[in-house]
Amino acid sequence: MKMLINVAETVVADALRGMAAAHPELAVDVENRVVVRGDAPVAGKVALVSGGGSGHEPLHGGFVGPGMLSAACPGEVFTSPVPDQMVRAAAAVDSGHGVLFVVKNYTGDVLNFDMAAELAEDEGVRVEKVLVNDDVAVEDSTFTAGRRGTGATLFVEKIAGAAAEEGRPLDQVAALARRVNENARSFGVALAPCSTPAKGGPTFELPDGELELGVGIHGEPGRERRAMMTSGEIADFAVDAVLSDLRPDSPVLVLVNGMGATPLLELYGFNAEVQRVLAERGVAVARTLVGNYVTSLDMAGASVTVCQVDEEMLRLWDAPVRTPGLRWGV
Amino acid sequence: MKMLINVAETVVADALRGMAAAHPELAVDVENRVVVRGDAPVAGKVALVSGGGSGHEPLHGGFVGPGMLSAACPGEVFTSPVPDQMVRAAAAVDSGHGVLFVVKNYTGDVLNFDMAAELAEDEGVRVEKVLVNDDVAVEDSTFTAGRRGTGATLFVEKIAGAAAEEGRPLDQVAALARRVNENARSFGVALAPCSTPAKGGPTFELPDGELELGVGIHGEPGRERRAMMTSGEIADFAVDAVLSDLRPDSPVLVLVNGMGATPLLELYGFNAEVQRVLAERGVAVARTLVGNYVTSLDMAGASVTVCQVDEEMLRLWDAPVRTPGLRWGV
Repeated sequence: MKMLINVAETVVADALRGMAAAHPELAVDVENRVVVRGDAPVAGKVALVSGGGSGHEPLHGGFVGPGMLSAACPGEVFTSPVPDQMVRAAAAVDSGHGVLFVVKNYTGDVLNFDMAAELAEDEGVRVEKVLVNDDVAVEDSTFTAGRRGTGATLFVEKIAGAAAEEGRPLDQVAALARRVNENARSFGVALAPCSTPAKGGPTFELPDGELELGVGIHGEPGRERRAMMTSGEIADFAVDAVLSDLRPDSPVLVLVNGMGATPLLELYGFNAEVQRVLAERGVAVARTLVGNYVTSLDMAGASVTVCQVDEEMLRLWDAPVRTPGLRWGV
Repeated sequence: MKMLINVAETVVADALRGMAAAHPELAVDVENRVVVRGDAPVAGKVALVSGGGSGHEPLHGGFVGPGMLSAACPGEVFTSPVPDQMVRAAAAVDSGHGVLFVVKNYTGDVLNFDMAAELAEDEGVRVEKVLVNDDVAVEDSTFTAGRRGTGATLFVEKIAGAAAEEGRPLDQVAALARRVNENARSFGVALAPCSTPAKGGPTFELPDGELELGVGIHGEPGRERRAMMTSGEIADFAVDAVLSDLRPDSPVLVLVNGMGATPLLELYGFNAEVQRVLAERGVAVARTLVGNYVTSLDMAGASVTVCQVDEEMLRLWDAPVRTPGLRWGV
């Protein structure tokens, strides 16, 4: 498997150096692996810190900036960051108003963010945590007890980030973040596996002519394998899986997310089918985002995330954001 | 080759329907295949129209909006749009101050935009054209007499688009667009081929363990094939190819562009190496953009575009832009 890298061991550090060069508005600590918005700590503001294994870019480092995350901690590829990174990030961004940890539900991330929260609190930083577990595909999975955290992470980070930017206190920002997660559901499909630099090849096998329905963002098994389906059939399956778990009675945000190697041309076509199914099921769509946001290296496929919003959440979604991966209004 | 599509015949129409759903600020004419900014024609403003084969998204439709293109005409995958689309687009966006056609140098595009310019002028629309031909890899190529147009298209559309937004007259906008093209050079590499929906498989063969140096954005042959190289070695080769043709004596804009299937993690790592080589060669970098902007469906690989800018061009690059694919300052 050919990759655009030097050696597997330096992939994350190399990417952070490249990110620092492209984004002078961020403070990138390559050695300690922490990406911080350049103007942190921001006086009077609750800080948001997230992180997780690398390989899902632009998540999380690409969502650092005004209106979204205060800092991100990238781990090795598909491997949790360590508590030291999170404690360092919290110390760098805390203005005295506390820090919200946004944690995707994978065992390693949960343990390490828990430990980091204790260590940070020992140093006098108030910490709240929100666990993101939106993936309806399976109840338990490789690396996860309970549901996996996937696309809803973007909605949590954006909406809670906007609330923090408005100066809301930690308990309110944390409660809002949990509310976003509770109102969001995701379902993903893989058409072809991803390859990690360390392995140098695919992390799982997917026969010609089959797809994985309900795949995780590290290639974890989903619900079932079937013979290849059309875009419309996949949209029916994915949206129905989401709606069987969350029946929205108000407008939704929709994320049609590419896993990494699926062309934007195909993602837009898939979005047309997702919108068709939502309309057929009577679900009103407030906003739609199409693109590669929560990726799985070079996996081919896509995921659908639906997030039911009230007027306040929609206003916070629309609020200005200035990050490498998501930017509008500023 | 599995694809997230319904059938090959409807790929472009499906994508346009999905784009219309995601971007209500655009007017997407699915039947006639024209993407227009929703507020066009804008009084007193020169309009910019571009287009080309589909499969390079977000180019061009994703660059329609305030500060960049007024309209885009998507052809079939890797196939020029037809003159009727371009004439229709010009009529939709012309405010009476004329239209600039931004044309990538491929034989079909050049012929069809030439014909469209004549037809539009017959209908009373003033038209200027700029030909983008920045790819230093080869002099003539499949589909092209002379150099191919690739990554510089983004710089031309952004900088000339900003000038038009400021209310400059057609001759000035056209002259500026030509100046951007003259000051920009690109070089691309492929690690794996792309697959078109019509063919249902790869458009060219690339053996295991080899890469194509100087590949075109439709998979056209480049300068040579070699055994796989590191990210650093590729950056040396690509940047030196660019700098052997353009020796900048002022700061440059850099685009490190993904071909489609190369993870953002790898693109950022590649950017670190590109920046190293530019620094070693004494080239000052003003701005850097890293991501998938001028893609080739699911090709794996990347391209480097360098554009020498003066203070005016840099100011226009930094000016606000609000499109699906490029957005800042608004």
